[in-house]
Amino acid sequence: MTLSDELRISIDGKWRHVREQSRKELAEMDLLYDHDLTLKEARARVLEQMKGLVATGMPAAGFSVEAGGTGDPGMAVTGIEMLAQFDLSLMVKAGVQWGLFGGAIENLGTQSHHDRYIKDLINLDILGCFAMSETGHGSNVQNLETTATYDPSTQEFVIDSPTFSSRKDYIGGAAEHATVAAVFAQLITKGEGHGVHCFVVPLRDDEGNDLPGVTTMDDGHKGGLGAVDNGRLSFDHVRIPRENLLNRYGHVDEGGTYSSPIDNVNRRFFTMLGTLIRGRVSVGGSASAACEVALSIAGRYALKRRQFGPDDDNEIVLMDYRMHQRRLLPLIARSYAYRFAQNQLVARMDSLQRSEHPDPQKARELEGRAAGLKAAQTWHATDAIQEAREACGGAGYLAENRLTTLKGDSDVFTTFEGDNHVMFQLLSKELLTSYATEVGGLDAVGLVKFAAATATDVVKERTAASNLIQRLIDARPGKGDDHDLMDRGTQLSLFEDREEHVLETAARRLRRAAGKDDQAAFEIFNAAQDHVIRCARVHVQRIVLEAFTAGIARCEDPEAQELLRTLCSLYALTEIESDLAWFMGHNRISDARAKTVTNLINDLLDQLRPHTLTLVEGFGVPEQSLGAAMLLTEGQ
Amino acid sequence: MTLSDELRISIDGKWRHVREQSRKELAEMDLLYDHDLTLKEARARVLEQMKGLVATGMPAAGFSVEAGGTGDPGMAVTGIEMLAQFDLSLMVKAGVQWGLFGGAIENLGTQSHHDRYIKDLINLDILGCFAMSETGHGSNVQNLETTATYDPSTQEFVIDSPTFSSRKDYIGGAAEHATVAAVFAQLITKGEGHGVHCFVVPLRDDEGNDLPGVTTMDDGHKGGLGAVDNGRLSFDHVRIPRENLLNRYGHVDEGGTYSSPIDNVNRRFFTMLGTLIRGRVSVGGSASAACEVALSIAGRYALKRRQFGPDDDNEIVLMDYRMHQRRLLPLIARSYAYRFAQNQLVARMDSLQRSEHPDPQKARELEGRAAGLKAAQTWHATDAIQEAREACGGAGYLAENRLTTLKGDSDVFTTFEGDNHVMFQLLSKELLTSYATEVGGLDAVGLVKFAAATATDVVKERTAASNLIQRLIDARPGKGDDHDLMDRGTQLSLFEDREEHVLETAARRLRRAAGKDDQAAFEIFNAAQDHVIRCARVHVQRIVLEAFTAGIARCEDPEAQELLRTLCSLYALTEIESDLAWFMGHNRISDARAKTVTNLINDLLDQLRPHTLTLVEGFGVPEQSLGAAMLLTEGQ
Repeated sequence: MTLSDELRISIDGKWRHVREQSRKELAEMDLLYDHDLTLKEARARVLEQMKGLVATGMPAAGFSVEAGGTGDPGMAVTGIEMLAQFDLSLMVKAGVQWGLFGGAIENLGTQSHHDRYIKDLINLDILGCFAMSETGHGSNVQNLETTATYDPSTQEFVIDSPTFSSRKDYIGGAAEHATVAAVFAQLITKGEGHGVHCFVVPLRDDEGNDLPGVTTMDDGHKGGLGAVDNGRLSFDHVRIPRENLLNRYGHVDEGGTYSSPIDNVNRRFFTMLGTLIRGRVSVGGSASAACEVALSIAGRYALKRRQFGPDDDNEIVLMDYRMHQRRLLPLIARSYAYRFAQNQLVARMDSLQRSEHPDPQKARELEGRAAGLKAAQTWHATDAIQEAREACGGAGYLAENRLTTLKGDSDVFTTFEGDNHVMFQLLSKELLTSYATEVGGLDAVGLVKFAAATATDVVKERTAASNLIQRLIDARPGKGDDHDLMDRGTQLSLFEDREEHVLETAARRLRRAAGKDDQAAFEIFNAAQDHVIRCARVHVQRIVLEAFTAGIARCEDPEAQELLRTLCSLYALTEIESDLAWFMGHNRISDARAKTVTNLINDLLDQLRPHTLTLVEGFGVPEQSLGAAMLLTEGQ
Repeated sequence: MTLSDELRISIDGKWRHVREQSRKELAEMDLLYDHDLTLKEARARVLEQMKGLVATGMPAAGFSVEAGGTGDPGMAVTGIEMLAQFDLSLMVKAGVQWGLFGGAIENLGTQSHHDRYIKDLINLDILGCFAMSETGHGSNVQNLETTATYDPSTQEFVIDSPTFSSRKDYIGGAAEHATVAAVFAQLITKGEGHGVHCFVVPLRDDEGNDLPGVTTMDDGHKGGLGAVDNGRLSFDHVRIPRENLLNRYGHVDEGGTYSSPIDNVNRRFFTMLGTLIRGRVSVGGSASAACEVALSIAGRYALKRRQFGPDDDNEIVLMDYRMHQRRLLPLIARSYAYRFAQNQLVARMDSLQRSEHPDPQKARELEGRAAGLKAAQTWHATDAIQEAREACGGAGYLAENRLTTLKGDSDVFTTFEGDNHVMFQLLSKELLTSYATEVGGLDAVGLVKFAAATATDVVKERTAASNLIQRLIDARPGKGDDHDLMDRGTQLSLFEDREEHVLETAARRLRRAAGKDDQAAFEIFNAAQDHVIRCARVHVQRIVLEAFTAGIARCEDPEAQELLRTLCSLYALTEIESDLAWFMGHNRISDARAKTVTNLINDLLDQLRPHTLTLVEGFGVPEQSLGAAMLLTEGQ
C-alpha cells in the first residue's frame, strides 16, 4: 500500500466502497465532455450516459426500501460526487432526476405517489424536472408567484403563471427531456393561501410536444453544463388532478378543505425544504470533487513543466518555485480539509435520513451546516479551478486539458440552491438563534427580532471528536511561545475563540432592534449584514478544522497521519493568514507572532513540496478523468 | 451634460475622440458573439468583422507614416480597447493581425519589409500570425527551441522545429486564416547562435493548403475566444529567403556574417521585445474594458432585481443590500482607478513611440509598468467578471446575458504576454535594480547577483502630478487623528511608505547572494520569490492611486470631482483593508485605527450607493454591448 493509497483511504470515508466501485465502473463509460457536439447532441448523449448509470445501483440507493429503492442515502450522495469527477453535466442531470425530482416525490409525496412514480423514475421510464426557481425568485423561494388554485367542481388544481417573473427558469430538463415536473406553487383553496407546495405537472406528450397550456422554453447556451437542457416553463391555467399535490405536509380534501400536520406556514415550508437537503449536500461535495480533478491536473503539470531556472540549460519544474507552491499547495490542503468535513456531513445526513423520528434540532443543525459547507466548497472550487487553469498557462486554456470545462461547469455551483451569501446568511441565522425552531425562513426581520428578544448564549457545540479537541486545546503551549502557531490546540482555540467573538458582537448589534418597527429592524440587520455573514464564514472554518483533526486521528497509517498533520497545519495557517488583521487587532496574535506566519507557511510548503504527487494521487481521481492532453504528451 | 457624462469624459482620457468614434461605429456593426455558430463559422464571421474595421482607420493608426500608416499609436491601442467592449475574439484577432504581426514587421523589420507588407496587412490582403510561444516555452521566450539556420549556398534560412516541445503553440491565426507567420527562432549562422530573431515564414498557399515542410494544427475548443483560430505550427527544414529575416536588430549578409547594432545578446533580445510593448498595453486595457462591461451589466441588474426585504410585499433591489454594495462598488472603484492608470500608460507609450530617440531608461520604466498594470488589470478583470456573474445569479449564467462569455474570453488574459506572476516579477526586477540597463532578461540569477553587487537606493519616482502629491502628503493630518485614513495625503503616504519598505527588505534579502554560485543565488531568489513579487504588487497600487489622484485634479466638473474623490477613497481603503495586517504589523496603522477601516468603507458605500447607475454609465459602455436579455425584459 503506497502512501497515496493511505491518504485516499483516509479521505474516502465511510462510503469508500461506493467510491471504489464508481472509479471502476465510470472509468469504462466514456463520460468526458465532448465540445464538438451541438447542444442537442450533447443533451442526447448525457441521457444515454444516465441509462448506463441505472445498472450501477446508485439511483436506487437514494430511495427508501418502502418507496421502491435500496435505502442508502450516503451511497446516493457519494455516487453523485463521483460523477462530478467525470462530468458535471452528467452529475447535474443525475442530481435533477434522482435527487431533486425523485427527492421531491419521495419526501413531499405519500404512498400513492411513491407507488406511481419511484420505480419508473429510478429506471428513467419517467423523466422529471424540479421546477422551483422563477425568473423573479431564486433565493427567496417562499415568495414564488406561480399559483395552484383548487377547483372543487372538478377536483383539480389550476396551475398558473400570472406574470412574466413567475415563469419557472433555469430548470434542468425543462428545455427538452422532462415529461413531468415537480412544480412549486402557492396553494390556494377556498380563497385562502397556504404557502408553497409541490405538484406533479405533466409537461409533454409522447412526441415531446408541450401539453395544452404548458409553454416550455430553452435557456440556450450557458457558461458551462452544455449537456444540461435548462429551460423555462410557463403555465396558462393548466389543470391537474387533486391527487397530483404531493401531500405529505399539506392535504386538500375533495371539498377543498386544507389540512397539514404543521400549523405554522413558515415552519411547514422550511420543513418541506429541509427534506430536500440532499441536493445541497450533493452540490457542495460535487464542487469539491471537480476541484480535486483540477488540482490533480495542475499538480501533475507543475511536476512536468519546466520554465526558467538557475541557468539556461537547467530549467526547473514549476513546482520547485516558491510562488507555484504558494499557488497550489494551500488549495490542495483546503481540498483535503473540505473532504473530511463533507464526509462528516454526509454521514450525519445519512444517519438522520435513516432515522424514523429525526431530532428537529439536529435536522436544523444539519441544514445550516450543509448551507455553510455548500458555500465554502463551491467558492473554494471557483477559486481553485481558476488558479489551476492559470497555473497551467496557455495549455490550461485549451479544452483538451479539461480545466476550462471544469471551470465553466462548476461556476454556477455558487448559485445553485441559492446564492452563497444567502447560504452563509442562513447558517448565521441558525447560529445566532441557537437553532431555535421558532425562527423559520430566511426573513431578516424575523431574525433580528428574535435575536433582540432572546439574550440566548451562542451555542459552541463541537462537531467532531469533542474530547480529542478539548485535550488538544488544554495541552496547547502558552501564548508567549513563538512557535505555538504550529500547535493544533492553539489553532483550534484561535478558531473557536474567534467564532465566539464574532457571533457575540453580531448578536449585540442585532439586539439594538429590540422594540423597533420592521423597517428599522431591517435597516439594523442590513447595516450589519457583512458582520452577520462573517459569522458563518468563521464557523465553517472552525468545523472544517475540527473535522480535519478528527480525520487525522482516525487515520491508521503513521506516515500518512504525519503528512496529514502537516497539511492540516497549512490549512489552518493559511486561513489564519487571510484573517490576520482580525487576530492582531483583537490581541489574539501579537505583532511579533504575526510576522512569523508567512515564514511558517513557507516552511510547510518546503515540507510538502516533495509529496506533491502523493497528495494529488490521494484524491483518487481516476486516470481517465485526468485525460488532459498536456499530461499525456512526451518531451515537454 | 449629466454627471455620468462628466465621469465618462474624465476617464475617456486623451483619446476620447477615438472612443466616441468607436462607440458610434462599432455599435452599428453587430459584433456580439453568437454561440450558435460552430468554431468554423465563428472564425469566418470574425474575419468579416475585421474587414469592417479597416474603414475605421484604426488599423492604419498603429503604423508610422513612413511605414504606410497614419502614425497614431495611442489611437491604435485605444481602438483595440474599444473592440474589447464588444467582443474579445475580435479584439484578439485584430490585435494579432495589426498589433503583434504588424508590429513585428514594423518594429523588427526595415524599409523593404515595410514596403512589402504593411499596406497589405493593414488592408487584410495579407493575414499574418505571431509565432512566438512554443509548447515548451511560453514565458521564457529567450529559450525558444525553433531554429533558423543560415545556408550561404542558397542564401536561405532553414526554419526547423527539432523537438515536440518546439512546435509553436496557441498561435492566433495558425489554425485557419494566416497565410504567413512572424516566426521567432534561434538564429544560427556559421555554426554560431545569435539568439532569438524574427523571420517571415509563408504558411499556406492560395487554397489554404500547408506549404511544403509546414504543418499547421488546430488547438480546437478553448475556454473562450471561440472565433480565434489558435493553432500549432511545426516546421520541417522550411527554406525562406535571407531577406525574410526582420533585420533591424540583427543582420546576416550573403556570406553568412552576422552583425547587429546591439552587441550584448541579452540586451538585443530584450530591446526587440521592448518594441513590441503595445501588445502588453493592449492586453491590460482590453481586460479592463471587458471588466467594465461586466460591471455595467451587474450594476444595472442590481438596481432592477428585487429579492427579500423588510416584509414579503416590499422586496428591495439587490443594490440596497450592504453585502451587494460590498461586492460591486469596490470593484467599480478599482475599475475607475485602473482606467486612469491605463490612460497614463497609453499616453506615455504614445509619446515614447513617437520619439525619434526614445530615452532607454524611460523605455524600461514603461515596459515594467506595462507588465505590472497588465497583471493587475487582468487579475482584476478575472475577479470582477466572476463577481459580476455570481451577483446576477442564475441569470448571470445564461449566455444571453453576456457575463459568461466575458468571463471565458477574458480568462486567458492573465496568461497572455506571460503569466501574471512572471509579469510582476519582471516589474519587481526593474524596481529592485533601478531600471539598470545592464540587467536584461528575466533571469533570476542575474537579478540577485546585480542586486547583491549594487547597493543602489530604491528609486521612488512619482508617476503623476508629483507636486500635487507632495502637497497632499505634506498636508496630511497627524497620525493620531482617528479620521485621517480618509485623507488622500495619508493614503498616498501609506502606499509610498509601504512600497519603500517592501522593496528595501526584498533588496536586503537578495543581497545575501553576494559571492554565491549560481545555484545558491537562485535558491536565495526562490526563497524570497513571494516577497519579490510583492514589490510589484504594492508598487502598482501606489502608481494607480497616484494616477487616480492626478485624474481627479484634471476633472473640471466640481460635482464629478467630488464623486471621484469618494470613489478614490473607496479604492484606497479597500486596498488598505486587504493588506491591513501588514500596516498593523509594521506600525503604520494602530490597532484602534485599523478597526475603523471597515466602518469607513461602509460609510463610503452608503455615499456611493445612490450613484451606482451614474458610476456604471460613466464607463461609457454602448447600449448595444450591454445587450443582456435580463436587462431588457419587463416586470422582474
